[in-house]
Amino acid sequence: MTFLTYRSTKKLNKLSQHPLDLTKKNVVTKSRIKKMKIEALGFQLLYATERVDEKVLSTLFELSKDADVLRKMKEMQEGVIINRIEGVESENRSVLHTATRDFFEERMTAPLAKKAADLAKKEYDKLAVFMEKIHKNGSYTDIIQVGIGGSDLGPRALTTALERFHKPGRKAHFISNVDPDDSISVLNRVDLKKTLIVVVSKSGETLETLTNEAFIRDRLKKMSLDPKKHIISVTGKGSPMDDPSRYLASFYIWDYIGGRYSVTSMVGGVTLSFVLGMEGYHKVLWGAHQMDRHAFMAKEEENLPLLSALLGIWNRNFLHLPTVAIIPYSQALSRFTAHLQQCDMESNGKHIDSFGKEVEFETGPIIWGEPGTNGQHSFYQMIHQGTTTVPLEFIGFKTSQFGCDLKVKETTSQQKLLANLFAQSIALAVGQKSDNPNKTFYGNRPSRILLTSHLDPETMGKLLAFYEHKVAFQGFIWGINSFDQEGVQLGKVLAGKIIDLFAGKGEFPLGSAYLSLL
Amino acid sequence: MTFLTYRSTKKLNKLSQHPLDLTKKNVVTKSRIKKMKIEALGFQLLYATERVDEKVLSTLFELSKDADVLRKMKEMQEGVIINRIEGVESENRSVLHTATRDFFEERMTAPLAKKAADLAKKEYDKLAVFMEKIHKNGSYTDIIQVGIGGSDLGPRALTTALERFHKPGRKAHFISNVDPDDSISVLNRVDLKKTLIVVVSKSGETLETLTNEAFIRDRLKKMSLDPKKHIISVTGKGSPMDDPSRYLASFYIWDYIGGRYSVTSMVGGVTLSFVLGMEGYHKVLWGAHQMDRHAFMAKEEENLPLLSALLGIWNRNFLHLPTVAIIPYSQALSRFTAHLQQCDMESNGKHIDSFGKEVEFETGPIIWGEPGTNGQHSFYQMIHQGTTTVPLEFIGFKTSQFGCDLKVKETTSQQKLLANLFAQSIALAVGQKSDNPNKTFYGNRPSRILLTSHLDPETMGKLLAFYEHKVAFQGFIWGINSFDQEGVQLGKVLAGKIIDLFAGKGEFPLGSAYLSLL
Repeated sequence: MTFLTYRSTKKLNKLSQHPLDLTKKNVVTKSRIKKMKIEALGFQLLYATERVDEKVLSTLFELSKDADVLRKMKEMQEGVIINRIEGVESENRSVLHTATRDFFEERMTAPLAKKAADLAKKEYDKLAVFMEKIHKNGSYTDIIQVGIGGSDLGPRALTTALERFHKPGRKAHFISNVDPDDSISVLNRVDLKKTLIVVVSKSGETLETLTNEAFIRDRLKKMSLDPKKHIISVTGKGSPMDDPSRYLASFYIWDYIGGRYSVTSMVGGVTLSFVLGMEGYHKVLWGAHQMDRHAFMAKEEENLPLLSALLGIWNRNFLHLPTVAIIPYSQALSRFTAHLQQCDMESNGKHIDSFGKEVEFETGPIIWGEPGTNGQHSFYQMIHQGTTTVPLEFIGFKTSQFGCDLKVKETTSQQKLLANLFAQSIALAVGQKSDNPNKTFYGNRPSRILLTSHLDPETMGKLLAFYEHKVAFQGFIWGINSFDQEGVQLGKVLAGKIIDLFAGKGEFPLGSAYLSLL
Repeated sequence: MTFLTYRSTKKLNKLSQHPLDLTKKNVVTKSRIKKMKIEALGFQLLYATERVDEKVLSTLFELSKDADVLRKMKEMQEGVIINRIEGVESENRSVLHTATRDFFEERMTAPLAKKAADLAKKEYDKLAVFMEKIHKNGSYTDIIQVGIGGSDLGPRALTTALERFHKPGRKAHFISNVDPDDSISVLNRVDLKKTLIVVVSKSGETLETLTNEAFIRDRLKKMSLDPKKHIISVTGKGSPMDDPSRYLASFYIWDYIGGRYSVTSMVGGVTLSFVLGMEGYHKVLWGAHQMDRHAFMAKEEENLPLLSALLGIWNRNFLHLPTVAIIPYSQALSRFTAHLQQCDMESNGKHIDSFGKEVEFETGPIIWGEPGTNGQHSFYQMIHQGTTTVPLEFIGFKTSQFGCDLKVKETTSQQKLLANLFAQSIALAVGQKSDNPNKTFYGNRPSRILLTSHLDPETMGKLLAFYEHKVAFQGFIWGINSFDQEGVQLGKVLAGKIIDLFAGKGEFPLGSAYLSLL
């Protein structure tokens, strides 16, 4: 059975002919808002403003049973080899990012998972010793993370989100782009004498990262600083970057942890523990671990990431909406959507299923977004009145991080922020009729809200894992391999050919044509 | 005649049944790459990798003539009232952002445009005097811009893009979100004693901005600093913020300058001239002005923003692609796409035409993107192999801003950056056949490249105006009003009701339902 042949898919197709009309009187009501929600781990998922009724909902849960997703989620966390395409050459690996935070009371017992967790714990302990030594000397105030893609986006998103919890006097910076201006502008901002540099590349061979590392080594030497006293590597054991003669320390990752799922491993761990302290990093892991357990232990109807995945499938495959806007009503999460762009689009932007067959349905949507309320003053015009419907995933917090607020005209800023969030979900759903066509809002723009108390390291861990598992669940339902990224190879190969042309080597007529325009 | 009834539209509909197949042998060739480009003002627009042939191209130019867009562009710059919806209540105004940079040799002579340019020049001169005084005293090192939407995104994008050209020791910061954590984290970063604050709101009534201003005034007072010595306003004459008893200075804007088109007015001018010096700001204006003249004086076939608009229309209305990814291969432009999101989506995300009739075609697409090469390690998997085709607009520069680069393995970073850009456009267009379905790339993903020498203030001005006019041209072709934003009102009204609930006032059952969940 595949996605298109499940009985539930066929039922959902029929139901989608007449999706719930949220603009009708007595559809979006007080009681619907209070009823259409699930609650776990301190999160509420509110979905009264999605175009689903009880019938659609129960059929979506049937779909999740047809696709057997809770079993698959458990198997993933047990280390079953799910990163594979049947019948063709593929990565053929386990997917064990959850092992990087599996060191709390309740642990996976399957041998592969246990082994991966033990290895991860060993790196964690190594890191704790390293950080204690570093901070005892007190010689480093800043850290620069050099990496790209998963070695940049997730760590950057979390470091930014948790700035409120940084130890005083510690700062993190990121260099990712091969654009030389990226390196220079960061290097101009720090005092390299007091700066640690963590270079992250699983293969030890990422073009952008090696180029930027060379750039920094050059700069250190020009300042008569010893690179070996400043540069740490995070890489695979035995990679060219696993070299004690060149690095102050090396921390390991493994091929069963995909870059976009690597935030809680050493890829994010070095920088997070530098700015938050080990205890802050530990809280992130604890938050993520709780969501990991929830993802396969909670039953369908109470499962946060699963319900979000199913509502996403409804919008994507049955209402045929091509994008998803993820809008945190929190400035601290300003880089979180960029991380989710990778996590979701690189995982599920696929054209074949895990049997190598071309899919005949839509897979991963385009993920985009900026924080609210900012977006309201930017692209919300199009969301309210444009011709392409955009489903929204809001993220909201009951209280602010700093707890420092001021009443202006009887309400605090945090209350104004929440008021805007709730108002948008209502306005988008119910719309507005008017004699002036320019003041007409068609409504029926679906949205849901993930609401929790406030954004601290533990909550951030939960939120991170919530999205990782939402993405995995959607992949399980579509029957695709969410864990490889063959689609990035062709560009790399052709870029290599053009780099050769710049170096005066090789032949590539199309590339030469572009070079002749410079 | 409207978009759907133009003869050219019907022809294009027919042509779109069999769009050019870029994956076929001898389609994307060396000579096509060299030929399919136009060049002006130091920019090259390369479009060999769009799905257009000569026939489509000439019909697109017919379309631009059917819609008489060059005349409309000139009329806009002359001050003709084009921000209106025929037959219903609407803003009914001129659209004169171009007047804010119309003080060079060649100026518009139409009375309204001339008057607007004279007023803008007066503010420019006021600003020059003010900045000289400020910097003579040398008492201010930092500036915080407080504003949201157009009063934030454009100024922030340009300030970030031109960091390389900031005067040493001068820094700009931005507070936009009503999220109290946004203010606090910025205020914790600066020494308020040495900081200017520029509060920007045309109406003087923007909720977020007034709230943040109150927050800052409170903080200044607690530090025994006089707000009147620190806070400048940029606002409409006679607004509540035009008040010499409360502000160190006030600079004016007018209702014929939309927020999303206001970067070159005092909205961006104060912060840009603070960090770049007046001469830097002047260069931005000069760049934009050159593109303004080009936009209505260059004929169709040589018109940069028009050709980009037409290719966009082809992708949106004839190939039915719902989004556009704008990908600058330049880290300095990291916030430029967020500005373009507003500029484009708020302008053209409309459901009625300028006669108040519901449109029966697609208007403005979803605009999104992150800088390259970063995106390659993130969402490009989906772009290469996903099920929804994403057209791309690349922006590239021949040299870096800092001119500080290092050869690693025979090539510089800037060469690697350009190699990746060109490689992506080729890979996306031509694809790759393979026996392994996971290594198959369907190709036919359209893209174009805007290429220029390097990113300095003048180029930034040109680039800004290029996109402003691309958006305006698309609006002219669709026959919609690109200059109002009624779609943001409903959310505001409902937010006001929920804010009242927080203050213990009023009634709004749906709002109360949400509040009961807190």
